[in-house]
Amino acid sequence: MPEIRHNIITREWVIIATERAKRPEDFAKSNPRRAELPAHSPTCPFCPGNEGMTPPETFRLPADGRWQVRVVPNKFSALTPVGELERRNEGLKRTISGVGIHEVIVECPQHDTTLAMLSPADFEKVVHSYYARYEAVTADPRVAHVTIFKNHGERAGTSLEHPHSQLVGTPIIPPQVRDRMENALRFYDENGDCIFCSVMADELIDQVRIVAQSDHFVAFIPYAALTPFHLWIYPLRHTASFSEITETEMTDLSRMLRKVLRKIYYGLDNPDFNISVRTPPREARGMRYYHWYVSIIPRVTRIAGFEIGSGMFINVALPEKSAEYLRKAQENPA
Amino acid sequence: MPEIRHNIITREWVIIATERAKRPEDFAKSNPRRAELPAHSPTCPFCPGNEGMTPPETFRLPADGRWQVRVVPNKFSALTPVGELERRNEGLKRTISGVGIHEVIVECPQHDTTLAMLSPADFEKVVHSYYARYEAVTADPRVAHVTIFKNHGERAGTSLEHPHSQLVGTPIIPPQVRDRMENALRFYDENGDCIFCSVMADELIDQVRIVAQSDHFVAFIPYAALTPFHLWIYPLRHTASFSEITETEMTDLSRMLRKVLRKIYYGLDNPDFNISVRTPPREARGMRYYHWYVSIIPRVTRIAGFEIGSGMFINVALPEKSAEYLRKAQENPA
Repeated sequence: MPEIRHNIITREWVIIATERAKRPEDFAKSNPRRAELPAHSPTCPFCPGNEGMTPPETFRLPADGRWQVRVVPNKFSALTPVGELERRNEGLKRTISGVGIHEVIVECPQHDTTLAMLSPADFEKVVHSYYARYEAVTADPRVAHVTIFKNHGERAGTSLEHPHSQLVGTPIIPPQVRDRMENALRFYDENGDCIFCSVMADELIDQVRIVAQSDHFVAFIPYAALTPFHLWIYPLRHTASFSEITETEMTDLSRMLRKVLRKIYYGLDNPDFNISVRTPPREARGMRYYHWYVSIIPRVTRIAGFEIGSGMFINVALPEKSAEYLRKAQENPA
Repeated sequence: MPEIRHNIITREWVIIATERAKRPEDFAKSNPRRAELPAHSPTCPFCPGNEGMTPPETFRLPADGRWQVRVVPNKFSALTPVGELERRNEGLKRTISGVGIHEVIVECPQHDTTLAMLSPADFEKVVHSYYARYEAVTADPRVAHVTIFKNHGERAGTSLEHPHSQLVGTPIIPPQVRDRMENALRFYDENGDCIFCSVMADELIDQVRIVAQSDHFVAFIPYAALTPFHLWIYPLRHTASFSEITETEMTDLSRMLRKVLRKIYYGLDNPDFNISVRTPPREARGMRYYHWYVSIIPRVTRIAGFEIGSGMFINVALPEKSAEYLRKAQENPA
């Protein structure tokens, strides 16, 4: 019989449609074909030699010589970095000026590669850039919250092939973040524990949904995963905000994220996916009841009318089977 | 400058990315090509003559003779109609047995048409079937909430071409519905008005986001539309639940929905879209603070990492321009 599972952290309910369930390997088959790309594209604004096609850079690694990672303001920014934050309440219509920061993190000079294929050292530079820009952008007094994310492939919403991530600093805290903080606070009041730490402890006992574990992180498929292979990477140490990550943890996170992305790349045949760093506002540093994490959503199924109409999800994969499949998937196939 | 708009009903904030904005007609260009379909497919379970390929029907219109609309249990149901509702709380893991109703509403006998192209009389039979099955399914004591929706096209999540809608009766009330009811109740407590009626009254004064109006309904683009051409159809009369619709209103809703879908069909070149009937549980009948409505989301853009990571949306169309475009779009081009 199908079952409906509750995600205690997000309060989402998910129908695990066992009758419709596919085998894990079947999801790989529906992936879009990728175009053959050149190693360097003369028209790509993210390729070396074309630096003049982007707005002036805000960050690079390494700082001297040829860049490996380069951060630039998004030329087609959703928000504007110039201007004052103004709020207008006209009757029922509430509006805030679209002031904020929207940056592109160019993950590497090569046009025709993908994040999972970077060397461990180069991968680490991407995570370091996430952190450096997170800290810099949250320092802007107009920025209330920062979302770091990556869209890989057309189904995941990207139009540019050159490997890149994005960072958006908004002048408001997204209601979704507030709702989850409120839910976590209620759990803390009732139980005296961080809800994320509690779920993680349970997962480490159950083991069946764990994909990988390292010194400082654990990757698992949530009990009520929204979609097939929906995956969370939690820091083992209780830390509320991404801002609290240490150098050692950053190195370890890079290795873990690279490992998981390679398992997805080989196990699911390079599907489109989204990554997001889910962190509360920086001011949540030190909070006992909240916990940052990284979310990965391979886009192997569609969000349809049921999901839009109800806010509930139908997952056609059993989370335990998805976890087992990725646990066994090769990181470095022969 | 871009602006960030608040949807007072859903509490969502949307970045209206004016700098990235496309012209309304540009959205039509990115639509997928549709395959040429036969008028009748011998392998389609929804085509006349193939009735034996579906589970036994639960409803048809007209009741005698050749059917125009036919409702059948979904052969690949996400939920099972047989069994008891059981709840299991094991530590942090909460699970409900996947008991519920999942039906397919076959909208017409023709394989190669689309909802918008049905005659007014045939269209009305679809809406009548929505209502009849809504009432029947909510009567099941295990069903707490019913979602009626339609997926048109592959981007909207459908795999079957034959025109059809779906209905899912779940044993729980989706948290999204509860959250919106709570928000509406707070507004009622503070203002003594239905939040939906208040927004609708404002829209009727502003006029700029209205797409169409009839005796009993108004179609408009919300002030903080999530995506281009995201559209709401509200009943003008305060009614909490879809269950309260009258015969006259059903006829009028059919005409309004047909008109809007034809404007979308011709104005945006037959894009993929989702429809959902957003109604609280049937027990909300008569409630003063809630209001049912129909939502239409043309799938002309992608949900990407920013939306997934923050729960906020970036809309690359100005709602007022989208409304103007659909207002002027022909319902019956020469």
